[in-house]
Amino acid sequence: MKNYHVAIVGATGAVGAELLRVLERRSFPVASLRALSSARSAGKSVLFRGESIKVEELDENSFAKIDIAFFSAGGDVSRKFVPIARNAGAISIDNTSAFRIEPDVPLVIPEINGEDVKQHRGVIANPNCTTAVALMALYPLHRAFGVKRVFAASYQAVSGSGQRAIDELREQVAASAQDRQSTPQVYPHQIAFNVLPHVDTFLETGYTKEEMKFQNEGRKIMHLPEFRASITCVRVPVYRAHSVAVSAEFEREVSVEQAHEVLAKAPGLELVDQPNKSRYPMPLTVAGKDNCEVGRVRIDCAFDNGLSFWVSGDQLLKGAALNAVQIAELL
Amino acid sequence: MKNYHVAIVGATGAVGAELLRVLERRSFPVASLRALSSARSAGKSVLFRGESIKVEELDENSFAKIDIAFFSAGGDVSRKFVPIARNAGAISIDNTSAFRIEPDVPLVIPEINGEDVKQHRGVIANPNCTTAVALMALYPLHRAFGVKRVFAASYQAVSGSGQRAIDELREQVAASAQDRQSTPQVYPHQIAFNVLPHVDTFLETGYTKEEMKFQNEGRKIMHLPEFRASITCVRVPVYRAHSVAVSAEFEREVSVEQAHEVLAKAPGLELVDQPNKSRYPMPLTVAGKDNCEVGRVRIDCAFDNGLSFWVSGDQLLKGAALNAVQIAELL
Repeated sequence: MKNYHVAIVGATGAVGAELLRVLERRSFPVASLRALSSARSAGKSVLFRGESIKVEELDENSFAKIDIAFFSAGGDVSRKFVPIARNAGAISIDNTSAFRIEPDVPLVIPEINGEDVKQHRGVIANPNCTTAVALMALYPLHRAFGVKRVFAASYQAVSGSGQRAIDELREQVAASAQDRQSTPQVYPHQIAFNVLPHVDTFLETGYTKEEMKFQNEGRKIMHLPEFRASITCVRVPVYRAHSVAVSAEFEREVSVEQAHEVLAKAPGLELVDQPNKSRYPMPLTVAGKDNCEVGRVRIDCAFDNGLSFWVSGDQLLKGAALNAVQIAELL
Repeated sequence: MKNYHVAIVGATGAVGAELLRVLERRSFPVASLRALSSARSAGKSVLFRGESIKVEELDENSFAKIDIAFFSAGGDVSRKFVPIARNAGAISIDNTSAFRIEPDVPLVIPEINGEDVKQHRGVIANPNCTTAVALMALYPLHRAFGVKRVFAASYQAVSGSGQRAIDELREQVAASAQDRQSTPQVYPHQIAFNVLPHVDTFLETGYTKEEMKFQNEGRKIMHLPEFRASITCVRVPVYRAHSVAVSAEFEREVSVEQAHEVLAKAPGLELVDQPNKSRYPMPLTVAGKDNCEVGRVRIDCAFDNGLSFWVSGDQLLKGAALNAVQIAELL
């Protein structure tokens, strides 16, 4: 079995930290690991398999002899350095949105379209975290009933905006307990004890970029060019794990019983649906888990062939680090 | 101008406290005020117009000489004591769900169906808080475009569950800062740094009672028996003010420009829709305000004639106390 020389770009970020843990936990065959970051974090160190690894500043020579490079340091860094990594002979697995919609870049959730990895030309994109979590439940239902469109709303954790946002929520909660002001830095408004219908930047249409990813990436991942998705993406004061309320319309008649059967068998997903025992997916219970959870499955009362359901998933894992390592495993 | 003898059932609760403030603030013509509660809170006192009023235990004689009785002490209390109040000659304005769907009980949002008050037979029902907040924006759009159905998801504050839930969130946040456990009492799970897709009790269908109120009460308030609404109701760690993400399908063609025009003129509503300046409705900014706020208005990308929007409103005011006093004013 071949061992791989691996680089992690953005090694000190929230996703970078998870990547190190997932590589270790899944015993990914790492021959060597290079931790890369911006100048600001270079010189720090990260732990991998009990060894301290010094973080190096990312530059044009960072990818010499690297086989696989994981990118999670923002779209601009990916746009600049993914081509450099490719020229150096590395395959890039990119967690940003930089290349996701490029026609010759596979956008992959291994449980859904793992086959697409084969068409890569040096870059494979990792999907948006909210989209990934929602599709883990939507895709098996699509296979069974044929999805036409969805209406959704998200409940997104602050860790989706990185370590600084986690610190910001913590600081705002402390400030509130001490009755003092705390000026938001990461978000435009206080996130503690508030919700913000604002994730990513706004487009001319009034949607955010984040909101359009569900439809655009959903079409590409499910190979469904007619798929329509309307979502409102909302940041909530939760540290970790995203949730999505979904109403989906299908081609064929649906039943809760059949849906349960399909969802219980779906890979990477757990059915948690005993509402009378107060058992349903929640961010607090799914955080730190590889599998996403689905529950609250019911016949939708505003569609003729529709199901409503609720999915929660650790967006740093399935929405980012875990999915990226699963892609590397497919290679 | 006549002055009224007023009773408040549930005077020490979260809504009761707001009722006292709203009656005072709107200079409602109160001749006398009787504060009523369960045995547990009787003997406490509440402030009204600078006067301390002793809280009396609710019993069969509580409504002697009362003209208007506001009920917000749970459905069971209303079911038992509203008939008693009626026999004593009082008109009841009921904030619980006990009588909302009864055919001979008007269910009223004054800005929408104030006329319905005239048909009362001693009881007028105040709508569900989430429904009220959402309809403040949906109804004017319905008048303009003809609503057919909506998909929605709510972000509901803990004050919707009363004072104990407010205390519970505060205690859980403190416990989390001190790294100690705090056992939930009001909710089945921790609400701090979590979201719960569980408001009110579950029905056989998998919906909660709270979720079905949107369709059932929406039909009655808007006089639209064919209206369909699919909603997921979710409790979030926010102290005050509910928000709702709505996608609505209309009979006629819609435009954001026309929608803005309609919403800007709607009574009891403010249009806050400058996303590029990070201006949109939020619980933190709408809390304590009489008006609901609507923003994030956009052409829905999964309906042919659809609009998506985001409403926030103080559910203790428009969703409860304010609306109840507005109903009393109509009388």
